[in-house]
Amino acid sequence: MGEIRLHPGITARLYTDKKCFGPGVAMLLRRIDRLHSLRAAAQDMEMAYSKAWTILREAERGLGMKLVDAAAGGRNGGGASLTAEGRRVLAAYEGFEAELKAYAEELFARHFGPLLDDR
Amino acid sequence: MGEIRLHPGITARLYTDKKCFGPGVAMLLRRIDRLHSLRAAAQDMEMAYSKAWTILREAERGLGMKLVDAAAGGRNGGGASLTAEGRRVLAAYEGFEAELKAYAEELFARHFGPLLDDR
Repeated sequence: MGEIRLHPGITARLYTDKKCFGPGVAMLLRRIDRLHSLRAAAQDMEMAYSKAWTILREAERGLGMKLVDAAAGGRNGGGASLTAEGRRVLAAYEGFEAELKAYAEELFARHFGPLLDDR
Repeated sequence: MGEIRLHPGITARLYTDKKCFGPGVAMLLRRIDRLHSLRAAAQDMEMAYSKAWTILREAERGLGMKLVDAAAGGRNGGGASLTAEGRRVLAAYEGFEAELKAYAEELFARHFGPLLDDR
């Protein structure tokens, strides 16, 4: 057995006909909010710029909402920011994910506790 | 927006210092129970036999339990079956996963419902 105690790890994603939102897009949105640039956000995640565009576009398509305002060019080379809807979606996802993970800890103890004690 | 309504998709895994149990191992155990062979179980999942061995070994190491009895050779070319502990682990995981997914539906409606109605 490894050195670290057995624990659950939960991944929460949203789907329509295909995946449209998950931890990766959430991370990208948080970085766009901080760095005001899709390119800088992608670099910070070591994600290809084209991949960042793709997951953002898929998220917007799936949710039917514009999540990011990206201004191309201009004096400061453009910049990106979350829309009001983007901010609400990110907050909803973070709340959903946090509550789900907390509940997973409880559920894990209930289902696996007795079994692990018997080992 | 896609044709299918937005919905959550949850993946539940167990970790020690690294991943040791998840949907893949659970699927493998169910097939071993049905097919009485690790090789047939792996083939049925289109998984390489070596990969099946690896994820099973990682699961047993992480949980500190023997999950599968594999008899090599013999008149019928060996065979594999779940141990009593393997059966209990699989049942615990399935219960954990099912309850978590049901709760995720509730949580999703609570966090995303208002936001989606506003679209």
